[in-house]
Amino acid sequence: MADSELPHRPKPEETQDASAPAAEGETKNASKNAAKKAAKDKIKAEKAAARAAQEKAQAAAQDANDTAKDLYGALPEAEGLVAATKFTEFSEEQYEKEVTVVARVDNARVQSAKLAFLMLRQQGQKVQAVIAAAEPISRQMIKYTGGLNVNSIVQVTGIVKKPETPISSASIQNLEIHIRKVYMISEAAQMLPMQVKDAERPPPETTDEGAQVDADGAPIVTLKTRLDNRVLDLQTETSQAITWISSGVSQLFAEYMIKSGSRWISTPKLVGAATEGGSGVFEVKYFKRNAYLAQSPQLYKQMCIAGDMENVFEIAPVFRAEDSNTHRHLTEFSGLDFEKTFRGHYHEVLDFAEDLLVFILTQLKERYAPQIAIVQKSYPKAGDFKLPKDGKALRLNYMDGVNLLKEAGVDVSELESFENDFSTAMEKQLGQIIREKYDTDFYVLDKFPMAVRPFYTKADPTDKRFSNSYDFFMRGEEIMSGAQRINDIKELEESMRAKGLEPNQEGFEDYLNAFRQGCPPHAGGGLGLNRIVMFFLGLPNVRLASLFPRDPQRLRP
Amino acid sequence: MADSELPHRPKPEETQDASAPAAEGETKNASKNAAKKAAKDKIKAEKAAARAAQEKAQAAAQDANDTAKDLYGALPEAEGLVAATKFTEFSEEQYEKEVTVVARVDNARVQSAKLAFLMLRQQGQKVQAVIAAAEPISRQMIKYTGGLNVNSIVQVTGIVKKPETPISSASIQNLEIHIRKVYMISEAAQMLPMQVKDAERPPPETTDEGAQVDADGAPIVTLKTRLDNRVLDLQTETSQAITWISSGVSQLFAEYMIKSGSRWISTPKLVGAATEGGSGVFEVKYFKRNAYLAQSPQLYKQMCIAGDMENVFEIAPVFRAEDSNTHRHLTEFSGLDFEKTFRGHYHEVLDFAEDLLVFILTQLKERYAPQIAIVQKSYPKAGDFKLPKDGKALRLNYMDGVNLLKEAGVDVSELESFENDFSTAMEKQLGQIIREKYDTDFYVLDKFPMAVRPFYTKADPTDKRFSNSYDFFMRGEEIMSGAQRINDIKELEESMRAKGLEPNQEGFEDYLNAFRQGCPPHAGGGLGLNRIVMFFLGLPNVRLASLFPRDPQRLRP
Repeated sequence: MADSELPHRPKPEETQDASAPAAEGETKNASKNAAKKAAKDKIKAEKAAARAAQEKAQAAAQDANDTAKDLYGALPEAEGLVAATKFTEFSEEQYEKEVTVVARVDNARVQSAKLAFLMLRQQGQKVQAVIAAAEPISRQMIKYTGGLNVNSIVQVTGIVKKPETPISSASIQNLEIHIRKVYMISEAAQMLPMQVKDAERPPPETTDEGAQVDADGAPIVTLKTRLDNRVLDLQTETSQAITWISSGVSQLFAEYMIKSGSRWISTPKLVGAATEGGSGVFEVKYFKRNAYLAQSPQLYKQMCIAGDMENVFEIAPVFRAEDSNTHRHLTEFSGLDFEKTFRGHYHEVLDFAEDLLVFILTQLKERYAPQIAIVQKSYPKAGDFKLPKDGKALRLNYMDGVNLLKEAGVDVSELESFENDFSTAMEKQLGQIIREKYDTDFYVLDKFPMAVRPFYTKADPTDKRFSNSYDFFMRGEEIMSGAQRINDIKELEESMRAKGLEPNQEGFEDYLNAFRQGCPPHAGGGLGLNRIVMFFLGLPNVRLASLFPRDPQRLRP
Repeated sequence: MADSELPHRPKPEETQDASAPAAEGETKNASKNAAKKAAKDKIKAEKAAARAAQEKAQAAAQDANDTAKDLYGALPEAEGLVAATKFTEFSEEQYEKEVTVVARVDNARVQSAKLAFLMLRQQGQKVQAVIAAAEPISRQMIKYTGGLNVNSIVQVTGIVKKPETPISSASIQNLEIHIRKVYMISEAAQMLPMQVKDAERPPPETTDEGAQVDADGAPIVTLKTRLDNRVLDLQTETSQAITWISSGVSQLFAEYMIKSGSRWISTPKLVGAATEGGSGVFEVKYFKRNAYLAQSPQLYKQMCIAGDMENVFEIAPVFRAEDSNTHRHLTEFSGLDFEKTFRGHYHEVLDFAEDLLVFILTQLKERYAPQIAIVQKSYPKAGDFKLPKDGKALRLNYMDGVNLLKEAGVDVSELESFENDFSTAMEKQLGQIIREKYDTDFYVLDKFPMAVRPFYTKADPTDKRFSNSYDFFMRGEEIMSGAQRINDIKELEESMRAKGLEPNQEGFEDYLNAFRQGCPPHAGGGLGLNRIVMFFLGLPNVRLASLFPRDPQRLRP
């Protein structure tokens, strides 16, 4: 990006005339005024030329004294073509060799007129660079380097050296760069709303917005400040690692589904009726009528099954208009959905889903070990997620869960009517009990009471109080809900009525027609990507596992 | 699914009392009435038991005459556990062997009291089955089989035989199944709004809704009827193939991006302001204020780049509130987006994007050859998509395109102001010219006029009338738009003003702040999945390349 491309910034006196509104009477004298203006413009142009010449002369005089004048400042075009080394490529083999890197200034410090330090940052990783006066490095260049605005992106060329002692504040501690050239790629403003290095420490657990500094006197950056300035917050080592792990969850989900012969689908998010419950749905102005945002792809993925697609999956946003302001609710999140026919029993699909999660969680640990280690520095639980040792998910029945709680002395009387689901507190407690008893943070509960599941859920044929439905848990918090679905139209209509829904009501016609023309037995589930990341890493808030989180209060950035 | 699970359907006389409203005066005599009701109920129960016994006796008598009574009808539980063969697994090695298949009834026909035929369908593929009277097959079983409702899902066990002559109406012509057992898995209604076999023929090109039958007397199924009954339409061989190819485009895009080290992102679809132009944006009621549906992930993927994510991609719905009722516009479609930093020149990213498309299109041809051949039966262009022979995309400048049109005698005067883009007709004509001259249906035009591109587009530093932006075309229709983006805050603000946008206006603050803190040079692009599928296969309408299409008129199914 050559300087000549930057827009010309006019001086105040240049703009004064242009911004003065023309008086109405003046329109008659337009040509006279035009002549006046031309004369004025000429004078201004002459003045500007004289000033430019003066500035140029000053700069030339300064340049003449500067032995390093081509070694810093604006990036010369040819320098932009030099191959750049990534920090991840660094090794001791580079000692005494010249490298070029493009990185952010994490910190810049003038030690003396002859010495300055830069901490360079690339995707959260830090490397130290040093500049010392010695031919041809000038004092002007040292001043420029030490005075760089923090967060600016610079291109640095230098010699890789082994430092006398390891640089404890850097990520790569066994080398430093002795600067030969430093050019500006993109300059940051002098004042930023927060410093990336301050956001490297985790946000305070309490929401005491009053405190400004922590016990060590370092600025405290609250979650709100981070999220308000998410672009800066994404630059931290921790955010970089979390976004890689989030990417990994989508990738591993797709990998497993594709390997299983599943078809990738995209179902509509704009739907004609609020079929899944009126209060939790966002309303959209759709030309001259209303549409709604799908709260899940549930009905559509089932319609794909009815359309003979056998095995389908989707990765797409899910919208929930719930006014829940908690650490684990978002109004928009990434849904990982699948639906699949089965042959004899819905446990074929449950086996498939359990293996899916074991695959994702095992592979996350394997492929993202460095990122997990980084997150662990801020969130100590990140590295301790326990998976079943034999590679098979632990599956208990819902009633086993109730009994485990009961044995532990929890009052489960409200569950014994089969009309209520676990409370969040009970779920967490059960997670603890299961961790202690079975040594795993991932497990499945099967056979939930029919009363707590949606109308399309298949009842357990052996005991109608229960259903062929399951939830998946990580660290005692739900990450997936799924079930065998009713595939018989009469049974489906009956189930709707039992749940107080009228099959003839607007919005269900297309869904019900899908069953009137025949539909194979099927089951499936829906996962929340952000919750998987949150609970896998033991993050205190789901917003940390969303790029640009949305909640009832937050629509920005 | 055992029969016992179907909801009990009460006879009319059983429901009469229950549905009669209680008169207000009766509340006083509640206990008396309860006693009366109990007595009535007892009588009713006795009657019902007598009737049931009678029915049972009749059925037993009939059963006694039926040598095949366990070989057809409701699926016995044990039969549901027999391993089923997929049509795709069939080969001549199965001759004389017993197989079990689960499939739809595409057609059922009684030839005589002793002979009936089924055409079975599985994911659009058809296999013939035949049933003939011979111990233990009974006439009742033949009547049942030949009378099955079309589209029902059945489980058929039989012996694979070589037919005397190939079955020309089947997909697999060199074998047929001689039925031994036939059980109902899911029964279709007797009347369906359309027949899948009628939808196997392409919809009429003209929208003459009056015509009921084609020249051969076969029912014509219009596009509207198909889309209204999309679940049935998805079952056609053609739709099955198209949905596989659509799945393939997402998969190949993700594959290429992941291989390149790109991070998978999910950016918000609910945004706080209509930044990309007010008229084309859907408004959402968001608690007590308004939100909007993102028209593209443009601003957010750039913010990810500003957040040091380097190389990102997204697969997500894109929403356009344009009242465009054409063959190629949808109000919701699948967007494939990417954004990437570069080192020296934006052509690094353009090369990357060209290779991406060559990879997707080449691999589609390789991996989905059988599906393409199926689509070609209905849409003859499906198989003739031309790719550059040398595996490199053809790249021309915008002005080369203008000149090619001019040489061909097209009036291009409106383009010579550099204020207008090609018209759709011009684009198509250019596609023809390029196909003839360069023998390719995929090509790239670079350096579009600045006037026709959005504010965030980088101007060409060597000629400000143009920009560092590109469009990708398939068969003369645009499938991708992309560009180098301005990464300097001053230049960006200037460009906004030049386009009549005020940098201080609501909604741009977070985006502009992303550049105030420094942002590396980057470029990217956005593809429409449905258009890629449409133009690759030469489909006449983009709705055929969307699972459940959305347009200004259509929000269903």
